[in-house]
This record gives sequence, C-alpha cells and structure tokens, in this order.
Amino acid sequence: MIETDIELLKGIANQLRIHSINATTAAGSGHPTSCCSAADVVATLFFGHMKYDAKNPHHYNNDRFILSKGHAAPLLYAAWAEAGVVPVADLTKLRTFGSDLEGHPTPRLPFVDVATGSLGQGLGVGCGMALAGRLDKLDYNTYVLLGDGEIAEGAVWEAASLAGIYKLNNLIAIIDDNRLGQSQATAFGHDTNVYAKRFESFGWRVEVIDGHDIEEIAEVLQGVGLDDKPLAIIAKTYKGGGVSFLQDKDNWHGKPLNKEEAAKAIAELQPSAKSGIGVSVQAPSSLPEPKNTAPSSYPAISYKLGDLIATREAYGAALVRIGEADPRVVAMDGDTKNSTYAEKFFKKFPDRFTECFIAEQNLVAVAIGFGTRGKVPFASTFATFFTRAADQIRVAGISTANLKLVGSHVGVSIGEDGPSQMALEDLALMRSVAGSVVLYPSDAVATEKLLEQMAAKRGIFFLRTSRPKTPVIYGNDEQFPVGGAKVVRQGDKVTVVGAGVTLFEALKAADQLKSEGIGITVIDAYSIKPLGKKEILEAAKKTNNTVITVEDHYPEGGLGDAVAGELSAEGIKVHKLAVNGLPRSGQPTELLSHFGIDAAAIVKKVKSL
Amino acid sequence: MIETDIELLKGIANQLRIHSINATTAAGSGHPTSCCSAADVVATLFFGHMKYDAKNPHHYNNDRFILSKGHAAPLLYAAWAEAGVVPVADLTKLRTFGSDLEGHPTPRLPFVDVATGSLGQGLGVGCGMALAGRLDKLDYNTYVLLGDGEIAEGAVWEAASLAGIYKLNNLIAIIDDNRLGQSQATAFGHDTNVYAKRFESFGWRVEVIDGHDIEEIAEVLQGVGLDDKPLAIIAKTYKGGGVSFLQDKDNWHGKPLNKEEAAKAIAELQPSAKSGIGVSVQAPSSLPEPKNTAPSSYPAISYKLGDLIATREAYGAALVRIGEADPRVVAMDGDTKNSTYAEKFFKKFPDRFTECFIAEQNLVAVAIGFGTRGKVPFASTFATFFTRAADQIRVAGISTANLKLVGSHVGVSIGEDGPSQMALEDLALMRSVAGSVVLYPSDAVATEKLLEQMAAKRGIFFLRTSRPKTPVIYGNDEQFPVGGAKVVRQGDKVTVVGAGVTLFEALKAADQLKSEGIGITVIDAYSIKPLGKKEILEAAKKTNNTVITVEDHYPEGGLGDAVAGELSAEGIKVHKLAVNGLPRSGQPTELLSHFGIDAAAIVKKVKSL
Repeated sequence: MIETDIELLKGIANQLRIHSINATTAAGSGHPTSCCSAADVVATLFFGHMKYDAKNPHHYNNDRFILSKGHAAPLLYAAWAEAGVVPVADLTKLRTFGSDLEGHPTPRLPFVDVATGSLGQGLGVGCGMALAGRLDKLDYNTYVLLGDGEIAEGAVWEAASLAGIYKLNNLIAIIDDNRLGQSQATAFGHDTNVYAKRFESFGWRVEVIDGHDIEEIAEVLQGVGLDDKPLAIIAKTYKGGGVSFLQDKDNWHGKPLNKEEAAKAIAELQPSAKSGIGVSVQAPSSLPEPKNTAPSSYPAISYKLGDLIATREAYGAALVRIGEADPRVVAMDGDTKNSTYAEKFFKKFPDRFTECFIAEQNLVAVAIGFGTRGKVPFASTFATFFTRAADQIRVAGISTANLKLVGSHVGVSIGEDGPSQMALEDLALMRSVAGSVVLYPSDAVATEKLLEQMAAKRGIFFLRTSRPKTPVIYGNDEQFPVGGAKVVRQGDKVTVVGAGVTLFEALKAADQLKSEGIGITVIDAYSIKPLGKKEILEAAKKTNNTVITVEDHYPEGGLGDAVAGELSAEGIKVHKLAVNGLPRSGQPTELLSHFGIDAAAIVKKVKSL
Repeated sequence: MIETDIELLKGIANQLRIHSINATTAAGSGHPTSCCSAADVVATLFFGHMKYDAKNPHHYNNDRFILSKGHAAPLLYAAWAEAGVVPVADLTKLRTFGSDLEGHPTPRLPFVDVATGSLGQGLGVGCGMALAGRLDKLDYNTYVLLGDGEIAEGAVWEAASLAGIYKLNNLIAIIDDNRLGQSQATAFGHDTNVYAKRFESFGWRVEVIDGHDIEEIAEVLQGVGLDDKPLAIIAKTYKGGGVSFLQDKDNWHGKPLNKEEAAKAIAELQPSAKSGIGVSVQAPSSLPEPKNTAPSSYPAISYKLGDLIATREAYGAALVRIGEADPRVVAMDGDTKNSTYAEKFFKKFPDRFTECFIAEQNLVAVAIGFGTRGKVPFASTFATFFTRAADQIRVAGISTANLKLVGSHVGVSIGEDGPSQMALEDLALMRSVAGSVVLYPSDAVATEKLLEQMAAKRGIFFLRTSRPKTPVIYGNDEQFPVGGAKVVRQGDKVTVVGAGVTLFEALKAADQLKSEGIGITVIDAYSIKPLGKKEILEAAKKTNNTVITVEDHYPEGGLGDAVAGELSAEGIKVHKLAVNGLPRSGQPTELLSHFGIDAAAIVKKVKSL
C-alpha cells in the first residue's frame, strides 16, 4: 500500500470519528468512544480492503461486514455515508424516531444483514455467511468486528469452535481490544496475548496488531484467505482513540460529548480528516450468481389414514422432499439429527447440511447467517434446547430473519428422560418473538404441508414436533393454511382445542363423552401464532361460548394463553388444561394422566362445566 | 495410594458399571455406555478422593460433585448407592414414575444440588459453589464431570473464563473424553490436546490422563488446590469402556442393553467387581459453619410521595439495605452494574459481589451455585439479556433453585437505544419457568417491599425494573404481598390493569376520562405471577366484567395473556394493549404513543367499549 493511500485512510478514519461524535452529540446519547477505538480498522476495511458494490449492498458476492459490537453503530453509519450509501446530512438524525439510523444497527438499513447490539452474536452469523459462500462457490469474505468485552460471551466461542472445525478461511474476526467495558475495565485489558492464545486454541490463525496503525491493519488484511484457517486479528486500541482527552479514559462508556467537548474533539480531528466519498473500492469478482429462486411447487405426498408416524419422522421426510425441489433449502442440527430426523436430509444432501454439534446458540446463528444469503435454513434440535438460543431467536425477530426452527421431543409425552429434556416453555418463548409464526402439527400430513409453507414463505417459523407416533388423520390433499385451525369433531356442549398429543386425547375424550350422550367440538390448533381465531370463535359460539384448551406445555404463555388472549375479549370463557406441576420421569401415559392433560382429565373438565 | 486401594477402586468402578447396565436394561432406556466411560473417574472420586459425610449429603463442607453430563445419571445413582445413600435395590427403579432416580438427575435426591441434562450448565454452577466456598472460608472442593460433546456449549467457556479470572483453585473440571457424541463422533475425538490447549488458554492448569487408569486418576487428584488455578483433567476414555463389545463402538449412544447383552456384559465385569459399601471415605474438615440464617426483619424505608425515582435505582438502594441486615445476600452482574444500580451493593460489600462480565449464562449459573450453598443471590443485568440465560433459568425451575433475578431497561420506554436493548419478551419467558414468581413494581416503595420478600422467601423470582424515573405513589408502610394487586383508582366503566410505566399512563388516562365524566378503575398488577387474580376479578365484576390490560411488552405471554388466561374462565372480557409491532429507536413518549400503550391509547380503547 502506497504512502498516499495510508494518509487517505488515516484521514477517512478521522472523518468517521467526527461523524460519530457529531451524531451522538446531536442525539444526546450513544457510544462515541466505542466508535473512535475502531475507526482505523473500519476505515481500512471499507476504503482500502473490502470488495463491494456500494450501489448494491445486497450484491451476492459483496464482502460482508457485521458490526457485532453494535453499540458502535454511528461508526458503521459514518462508513456507509462516506461510501456514498447514506446521505451525510442524515447522520445527525441518529436515534431519532423515523430515522433508520437506530441506536444499534438493524436491517431496516440495506447494508445491515442482522441486528446487533445484544453482544456476542455476530461471529455465529458470520459462520453461516461463510459457509453459505463456500456452498455457493463465491469468494466474498465475511468480516466481523467484535468488542473485547463481548468476547466473554459463550456464543463467541461456540462460533469460534465451529469456524475452526470447518476451516472457514473466508471468515475474519477483528477484536477491537479497547480495554474498557461498560462498568469497569475488562478482565484482560490490553493483554492481547490472552485473546491470541484463546483463538489459536480454537483453531484460528491469529495476528496481533496496533489497531490504530493503518499500515499494520492493511498489512494483516493482505493475509486473508492465504491459509486454511479463519483469521482473528487482535487489534490493540484505545477507547476514544484519536481524541486526546477521551483516549483510554474511564467513565466515557455510552456517553455523548456535550457541544463544547465535541467542538474540542473535532478541532483535533478536523485538520487531518479526509472524505471517503468518491474513493474507489474494489468490486466483487464476477463469479456466477447462485440460483436462489423458489420452486413453483413441491412433489406430492402419499400417506395412508391411520398409519402411525411421529411428526418428527414426517419432518425428516418433508425436509428431503422439499429439499429436492428447492435448492435453497439447507439444514443444520446440534448433534441430535438421529432423533430429530434431520439425518435423512444429511444423508441425502451432505453438502447442504451443517453439523453444529452441541452448541445451540451457534446452531441458530449459523441458520440466520445462511438465511441472509438467500438460503432457506432449517435448524433442528430438541425443542427445549432452542431455549439455549432464546436471545439469538429474539434478535432474529429484530432482524426480520428468514429462519426455520423445528423442535422435537416436546412436553411430558417424551416420558422417561425427565424434565430437562421436555419442552414445556417453548410455545411461550417462540410466541413472544416479534413477527414469529408458531406451528404445531398433529399428524404427518399436517407436518408436511406446514413445512412446505415454512420453506416458501419468508420469516421466522417454529414448528413443534412430537416424539410419540400418532395416526395420520388427514388426507393427502388437506390444506393447512398458516393462521387456520381444523374442526375435527363437532358437538354442542363445549369446544376443546388441542394440538399434538393432546389432540388425540381430546378425540378419545370425545368418543367417551359421545357414548355418554355428550357432544363436544374438537379443534386442531395446528397454527398457534397466528391463531386460528376465526375457526375457534365460530365453534365456541355454537358451544355455549365455552372453550377448553389442552396442551402438553406449562400453563403460561402457550396454547391456553393464546386462545384466552384472543377470545376473552369476544366474551368466550376459556378453561385451560396444561402441565400443572414440575414433571418427572415416567411413562408418557402416566405423565399425561398425572399432570392433567389426558382424555380422562378432559372428560372430567367437560363434565364439570 | 497402595496397590490394594487401586484394586478396590477398580472393583468398585466395575460394580458401578454393573449397576448402570442393570438399571438401564430394567428401564428399557438410558445411557449405559456414557456411564461406563466415566466409571473409573467416579469410583476414584467417591471412594478414593472426595471428602464428605455420606450420612449428610447437604453438609456445609462436603466436597461437591456435579454430574454436568446428566445423561450418565445411573452412574451417579450407583455411586451414591455404593456410598450407602441409595438402597441398591432401588437402582432398578430408574426412570419409573414415582422413583426419584429420574432419567437425568434432579434435586429430588439429597445429593443432587442442581438438575443436569441440558448440557454445558454444570461448570458455571460449579463456579458459584467455588466462589461461595471461598467467601465462607470453607475448604470443600467442587468437582464437575463433563462430557466431551458438551464442551461445544458456550456456557462452558463462560464458566471456564470466570474460573480462570478468579483463580478458583477449588474448582475441578473433569472432561470424560469418550470421543463419541449422540449422532456422530465429536469434532475432536480423542485429540485431548485440543481440550488441553483450550483450558490452558482460559487460565486453567491442565492434566491429560488415561481415564481408565485408576492410578493416574488418583495421582492427578492429589494435585488439587496445589497452585492458584482451577484444574482441568482431560480423561481419555472409551464410551462403553470396560465392556469388550461396547467399548468405543458407534451407535450405542442412549441405548440400553437387552437382557442377553446385559448378561454378557455383566459376566465380563462381575469377576473383578467389588462393593464400595462400608469403604471409609475422608470426612470434611471441621471448619466453622457459615451463618446462613435469615434476619427477623429489615431496616425501614423512608421515601416521600411524589419523589421521582426509577425502580432500578430503588433496586440498588434495597440491595444495600437488605444486604446490611442479611449476610446471606450476595450479588452479581454482567458488566451493567452502573445501569442496573447493583453497583451500590458492589461498593458497599465488594467481597459479596461477583462481576461476571458480559456472560449472562454464567451470571445466572453462578447465582444458582451460590444459592445451593445457603446464599441468597441477586443477579442483575438488562432484563432482555437474561434471555441469553433462558435455558439456565428453565433448568433452575427443575432444580427448584433459590435464585433472584432483577432485570432493568424494559420495554419501549427505554427509548433511543432501540429494540436490541428492550425487554419485550421477558415476562413471557419468566412466567413460563416452573414455580417462578414474576414481579413488576411501579414505584420505589413497591420495589423495596418486593425485594424484601425475594430475599426472605426461597425460590426463583424475577423482578422487572424500569429505566425512566417514576413518582413514589405509595406510603412507606404499604404492603405488597406476592400474588396481590393494588386498586389505585376506582370507577365503573372498565378496569384498566397496568404495571411499571403503563400504570402511570393508566392514571393519566383516568384523569383525562374523569374530566369527561367517565370513571375507570386502575389496578397496579405488581405481581404478574402469581397474579392478583382476586383483586382484579373483584374490580372487573364492578366494571361490566370488562378489563383492559396495558403493558410495555409484546402481546404474547405477558400481562395481558396472564390476565386473560386467569379471568376469561370467569366470564371476564379482557382487552389487551401491548407493544403492537417491531419497535425502533425514538424518545420514550414517542414510542409509547406509536406502539399504542400510552394514556391516549388507553382513553381511546376505553371509549371504544
């Protein structure tokens, strides 16, 4: 790199600092000092190294940049402003209502792939992007900028381990080691050796540099992709770096400068500041664009009524069937693929499957990363183990990610393994995610049909599968629109709403009650969110405005709350049957009975009304 | 260690294998091969190394043992049977309904401190126990047995990092490196060097041993506590180790032997098997028992009506006040202590505070560990970051842990930082935890009074604090029983239920409506779970059986669902106002208005009814 380039990059770095300070001072909040520490790295990446088409931030072969330390958002916005994507005048709208320049980055902005700000999540998403690039035979690199404080997050090490295992040499982590956390110094301060050893032991090539030395930064970036390991760059920096009275000082985390302080800082920076506007950057190479288009249809299914098939088995079958028609479909699992039946897909399409081992946060992050690259990612594990990735899933809501989660082994009906393996809170968790769709099929046909919609529609979907075998009760042509519900039995006393194993308990109860001259309506609530409100309300109005919900889930936040939350305003009485205590090991039938969600419990409840 | 001891331990290990095989064969499910790999380590720990009083598994100075690889439960039960705690005849009741010998260990058993089975959680709890031992000046050690597969979990590395930082040389991790996961081999197989380097880089002393060689195991255990680092023992083992036709074979994960196979295995093991019953073990040393008794009362509070105090500030004040009276109280935070106000406690009682850095899974695990040792642990961070520890909290429910979580910065009312920092799903998540209590105070007095109860009562509590300052509306003598609610305004048209910032919006709405001649009842639902059902129902019956809930939370699983779920069966109509879309940055007032939960939205809703 020639001298003039280095001076230019130094100047741009200072321009980014000025923008960051101005924006946060205008906003009256934000993290200018966390921007300043990383300004030299970002300037070098954006104007001296990365290959991208700024006019098309979504270009399939642009290098990707994830600001994992999302609180440095003003720095990111400044870089894209100098790259010509964001009007410079907009930068001071930071954090105001209506501006897409939010306090932490979100994909409302075209150059942001995933929301960041909940720390430690960027590297896992980067793994997914890097794997997708490899699958699509593209040569883009994925750069993830992390703070030193966030390295304490376990999610970072799940990602680091996976990247090492799969030798993702198209993934680069840059650690902005500015020494200072929010409430105190980090545990390791400027001991870059600690971070270096850790990344090395996780299978990475490591470079330690002065993160304020453009020459050094540019030089190590030349080494990207030269061997078969992911690259970690430990950049020793100063919080507030570049501004004499901020640099390396305590108590400046998350604080904007007042107007006088800002003026003073800018007076220091301005003389050497240079604009990046018009500076030419390398274009992405012209490799063929991957075919990420949806198929017009999927092959038909052929189940026989009455056949006993667990919905988790149907998931495995559906994934293969849909994957054959739709090249966008990829899958991943957390060392449970023989139980979730994702193994079927793995055997058929080994290149499109990623074993993520026992690391569920990263399992979800990898899926999100694939989703940002035009893939349709299906991640599976025991439903309750997705709880480990609850925060990744929450943030996926903010990212409006394309993410398909399939969780097996739900409720007390798994039996002997005991409560640690039983998903009893997953519906509550998944319902509470912004924009999520929550599905809970009861038979193989419903499972297959719902999975087709999950593949075809963009968004965050969770499908709950069950461990026990259940009979096929629907014909192969039955449709299961998201947001619907099925009336499977009609009566006049009360409407019983179930899903999964409890639907079959409700049907048993209906048979028994019928023999005693009592008619009940039974509804299959295969769509928990959005709920089949219309169908349930219609049925309830014909059954004394009374509904009983039955669910293999705790009483809070699941099917019962969903139905009550939607129907009580309509004057419907909703009685909830749910797992009414802390479960324990036992046979499924014993547990369904003991915890009050079997046919006998339903019969008893119906008779009590 | 003399020859006869080694032969005895070898014999006991085989006896543990026999028990594990018999129990799983009787149960028809379980993980015998995962027991066999660790049998030599467990035999040596229990009968040749650990100090404990088997007659009193809860003894304050017993060495602690956590089976983080909880699926090897039969091995744990076998060890305690040979130690004389579990009747040997009970072992074959494994996994049956009514037996406390569940599929994965739970604290129904006196020698189990925490439920395991959701992998990767044991080491963090071990950190808490080790820190508690140090605080109490006890010399017990904490041994955590992990599988090699679970090392992929980020939670393990959060714990490893903390143990290294705090030089917990009373914490010992033993990695049962048996090479085989559930669905395939682990990524690193028998490459013990990978694990060794990782633990070393995280600040641990590491020993690599043959995990089937009793002599080696016993020898490295002699080195416990000899330096100032935690000790990781990487034990190379074979899944199914000790049984010729199981050892190191694929496809034996989680499979019991059939009767013939079991007989064949036992025929191999029996000749050298020896009983541990009657073998003497070292007693715990007789250091003074820590005083972990509750105080009879707490000092009084003195707030002034109308004073503006954020509930998060009141948390900091309460923690100091309660901590002064109650020596059991300890606190921990994830580098947010200046925002959550836990810093006040840290400054007052630095020895009783643990900075856990940005690692929320471990923050919660450390708290759980302290809780098992008679402490009352208060863990704080932004409420939404507890989502990162959702699985630890879920499993805490199974552990019936003593755990106090205090989450700040909730809802859109935090404003400019944007959605990644806003807790909008925390009520759903916390309500869904078995046995949890969920509290949401609106002013400083309520906060202080609820915190007193959290300290005094055993169990899992979550208290939601707010960022904005709110006026003190209750007198210092007001009581806030868990499970109650306060009627703060009375009218006849409708009952509006709020909490936190929305309570104040409801009060504003009441004022405006009153000026228009419309009276509403306003209820402060400070106890979300258990809900103040009685108070709300009573009020609703006087207001046309109609309730409006208003919450700074998504519509799913929070206050609205809680009220609807409890009251709809009583014929009450519940209308929900909640954050009705994906939030963004902005001023709190703008966001409350835009997302439909401010006074104007309440007025509009009331008038629409």
